[in-house]
Amino acid sequence: MDLTIVGSGVVGRSVADLASDYGHRVTAMADSSSAAVDPDGLDVAAVLDRKEAEGAVGTADPEAALEADYDVLVEATPTTLGDAQPGFGHVKAALERDRHVVLANKGPVAERYADVMALAAESDGEVRFEATVGGAIPVLSTIEDYGPGKISAARGILNGTANFILSRMAAEGLGYEHVLAEAQDLGVAEADPSFDVEGTDAALKCVIVANVLSQGAREYTLDDAIVEGIEDIPPSALELAQEDGRTIRLIGEVSGGEVRVGPRLVPRDSDLAPDGTRNIVQLETENAGRLNVSGRGAGGPETATAVLADVGRLE
Amino acid sequence: MDLTIVGSGVVGRSVADLASDYGHRVTAMADSSSAAVDPDGLDVAAVLDRKEAEGAVGTADPEAALEADYDVLVEATPTTLGDAQPGFGHVKAALERDRHVVLANKGPVAERYADVMALAAESDGEVRFEATVGGAIPVLSTIEDYGPGKISAARGILNGTANFILSRMAAEGLGYEHVLAEAQDLGVAEADPSFDVEGTDAALKCVIVANVLSQGAREYTLDDAIVEGIEDIPPSALELAQEDGRTIRLIGEVSGGEVRVGPRLVPRDSDLAPDGTRNIVQLETENAGRLNVSGRGAGGPETATAVLADVGRLE
Repeated sequence: MDLTIVGSGVVGRSVADLASDYGHRVTAMADSSSAAVDPDGLDVAAVLDRKEAEGAVGTADPEAALEADYDVLVEATPTTLGDAQPGFGHVKAALERDRHVVLANKGPVAERYADVMALAAESDGEVRFEATVGGAIPVLSTIEDYGPGKISAARGILNGTANFILSRMAAEGLGYEHVLAEAQDLGVAEADPSFDVEGTDAALKCVIVANVLSQGAREYTLDDAIVEGIEDIPPSALELAQEDGRTIRLIGEVSGGEVRVGPRLVPRDSDLAPDGTRNIVQLETENAGRLNVSGRGAGGPETATAVLADVGRLE
Repeated sequence: MDLTIVGSGVVGRSVADLASDYGHRVTAMADSSSAAVDPDGLDVAAVLDRKEAEGAVGTADPEAALEADYDVLVEATPTTLGDAQPGFGHVKAALERDRHVVLANKGPVAERYADVMALAAESDGEVRFEATVGGAIPVLSTIEDYGPGKISAARGILNGTANFILSRMAAEGLGYEHVLAEAQDLGVAEADPSFDVEGTDAALKCVIVANVLSQGAREYTLDDAIVEGIEDIPPSALELAQEDGRTIRLIGEVSGGEVRVGPRLVPRDSDLAPDGTRNIVQLETENAGRLNVSGRGAGGPETATAVLADVGRLE
């Protein structure tokens, strides 16, 4: 398939890099200030080199990427809240041209799910968004195959930054600020880590899962989520937990019509206490008990594999 | 879709029971001695009651189920080795009529994979077999979505009976024969448990995974697997392992072109040491590190959900 990739951050660049391994062509690519377009397929290596050297993927206006010929829009611009722009606008443009959309950007399906589904219903194009929840972990495809109506709850660890910080605090007995600084040094936490440590990132993912499980009966947005982050957990809380054979992790849960993210006590050897940056999702199913899926929830290549798996499901 | 279900054991009956929840009709059903056929859809409850009361699903000859009108053959007869008959013949009959096949029976895709794929290539029907590996756990669909060529290894615990026995031996310090008897009382092990405890069942599943990962480059059968079971593990081995923070589990692995099943030392808190009858599969992927999927690997309803997920993927 021919892909237009809008958004040239870590994920967009990884999708461009891996597309040919999956048998696809990149016919256009855009960042915030420019676009590169070639109906016969871009020289991706050259485009990525240019991006690294000059900070721009091409010389055309960014809109050119949406006006180009393509089969699938890969929307990989940064997640935005509220009106989810400009990502939502890109999704709309593609669907109105009867093209498919594969999202890595969480905004449109966390904040404007009903609007996206309405546009998809009127379009010959489909919308898929595996990459928005749990990176490489097959969360949404498992829900889709199992049947969303047959899953009563989903819970898990969906933010690797927060999990890394808590598992290091527990392992080393160190304070939050100290471990946050370590995480930033390692590139596991951003310079501004609030999206991760306040629980917003995990909440957006849970809201997306809630929208999928609800199957149109109810629309969820970030405002519906009850969210508590990890910044106020003192080392003593983790020590006390440990004496009991337990630990504290930032758990997101979708159940009983509610979306909640917050620190929770879990047994130390629980499936819900992986170490480091791994993510895990548990699905409670109607006929098959609990299914677990875990793996790397973030990263350029990791998230790109989820995008490309979605493209494969479109064919 | 209209299903013909050949094989009325625990799995076949569960598929029949759940089919309407998934929007499908059962137009024929067969056991070893009889068939029930109704082009407008069987009264499944009545057929299952008859099976329970009389030991037969209907009054027609069993062949009638393959001659009926249907979209998908659900092949749920017991796994047989070597020529994989009569299951293979059922698969052939459906594909030669350009109908789809969903397998719960491991035989055809473990012992005659190339023959099955050749028939599928000549047919308008597709062959799917999620239920043959890990019951409700989405192993093969995850491999398919990720890309079989991008997975370098698969390993895991694929036999709940053997895992239950070993985890109980470790937990209680009891001997194999004692725990086997307990497992039989609980219905976790069969009266003749050899398929499970000798590692054959796990090996068949690994052979199927090897066939999928190989993508036609090489065909694997049970004879290619190096298999060792659990019957000779003394309690002392588990105690010694425990002193080291480890335990022993029956692990199957597909890697480096080989298929091996055997008892292996693993860290006590390893993902590869779930307790009880749970199964887990780890996939080593090219761009996303390790993916884990775990859950219930066996059981009527559990396996039926995998069959019905495959039917859903056909549409």
